[in-house]
Amino acid sequence: MTAQLGARTWVVPGGHVPFPGHGPEPQFTSFDQLCVLNATDQDTEVSLDVYYEDAEPVGPYRILVGARRIRHVRVNDLIDPEAVRLDRPYGCLLRSRVPVVVQFLRQDTRLPGVVALTGVMAHPA
Amino acid sequence: MTAQLGARTWVVPGGHVPFPGHGPEPQFTSFDQLCVLNATDQDTEVSLDVYYEDAEPVGPYRILVGARRIRHVRVNDLIDPEAVRLDRPYGCLLRSRVPVVVQFLRQDTRLPGVVALTGVMAHPA
Amino acid sequence: MTAQLGARTWVVPGGHVPFPGHGPEPQFTSFDQLCVLNATDQDTEVSLDVYYEDAEPVGPYRILVGARRIRHVRVNDLIDPEAVRLDRPYGCLLRSRVPVVVQFLRQDTRLPGVVALTGVMAHPA
Amino acid sequence: MTAQLGARTWVVPGGHVPFPGHGPEPQFTSFDQLCVLNATDQDTEVSLDVYYEDAEPVGPYRILVGARRIRHVRVNDLIDPEAVRLDRPYGCLLRSRVPVVVQFLRQDTRLPGVVALTGVMAHPA
Repeated sequence: MTAQLGARTWVVPGGHVPFPGHGPEPQFTSFDQLCVLNATDQDTEVSLDVYYEDAEPVGPYRILVGARRIRHVRVNDLIDPEAVRLDRPYGCLLRSRVPVVVQFLRQDTRLPGVVALTGVMAHPA
Repeated sequence: MTAQLGARTWVVPGGHVPFPGHGPEPQFTSFDQLCVLNATDQDTEVSLDVYYEDAEPVGPYRILVGARRIRHVRVNDLIDPEAVRLDRPYGCLLRSRVPVVVQFLRQDTRLPGVVALTGVMAHPA
Repeated sequence: MTAQLGARTWVVPGGHVPFPGHGPEPQFTSFDQLCVLNATDQDTEVSLDVYYEDAEPVGPYRILVGARRIRHVRVNDLIDPEAVRLDRPYGCLLRSRVPVVVQFLRQDTRLPGVVALTGVMAHPA
Repeated sequence: MTAQLGARTWVVPGGHVPFPGHGPEPQFTSFDQLCVLNATDQDTEVSLDVYYEDAEPVGPYRILVGARRIRHVRVNDLIDPEAVRLDRPYGCLLRSRVPVVVQFLRQDTRLPGVVALTGVMAHPA
């Protein structure tokens, strides 16, 4: 029954990894993060395409999420096929073989001694 | 008529209770919180399963929400069947006997003298 | 055509007006806010019921939103039939005669020299 | 297949560009931002109408978003047919010829040395 939880396609238009960050790594680094929950009984590979303002989309990036598992991935850590550059506007489109749910989170520590957080549920498409 | 408000299943993929917190407890503690509104005329028990990156889901945690009531529960306070550990990524899946609406909130006070807030509506599945 | 934009019923489970606030009023007061957009060509009255953890719902509060207008209302300012108390968990249910869209915003200035913001789109029911 | 991602109409009721801002421009300016992702193979023109509490809607503002591109636009920068005033409540309604996804972000730097962030996915109508 849980196999139908969520959707196979999700969209986040408002990506932008803040730069630089201040404070101990990794917990106080500036980051954008994608959080995926896979409640099904099958492992899945989430395929991620990154869209830019002034260039063709780059991808697919591949994120493995096991059956009955979550995965929180920092966009800063996506390096294959190429690193997602910091301080550059982007959006992303995620596709999964099985239904999942995707949430987006940003932590901004550009100012020393300050943490700002924001996030949204991705849009299921 | 209000009996049909909301959904019976809700998902939050991006849980992570910040640790530590600073400032007077309980109002300035770091926390993740689940907020449930039950507009129906029946009490409900919300059953909560917690998903992790590297272990099988844990649950069900049980949250009682009376008829025509809200309930705001800090994830930090969920201890049965086992405490949800702080500073560990998780996601959660909530199921209710009657339709409810679920919102997620995080308060981060890891830095002294700083409050960061973020939240999302859970995804109705 | 725009008459069908949105929904007639909206839910926000996670209300809690922070208290106290610091800084010049009204712009730096701590508040919860409901933001309503009425794109139709008819004035509407939004009827608001407030739900609590330990008491029956209170309402209706009435919010007038003109045709082709927005209205941003601080929950702190709702006083009829009774004031919504600060620092007390609540949720709310909004009903409109015509379809509208509702967003929720919180500003937390409990710590001097700190502003925290969070918000969600209300859940259309 | 991606041509059907998203919706043609989106609504954000809770606009309000914070004023003033502190810190180096443009990265620390106070702003409201609209983030649009167009995953289709056609360029699109997004038509934006701005709604107020006490005046008729103003628009259309026009935002071009290329095929397979994102666009992040600060509301502060919308000046034609007239500038969106700072520190004034507004809402907006976006229409696109092709399906897109729209996210809203606010950065508040009214207090020196403080960054507050909040955002929501716009409501697809």
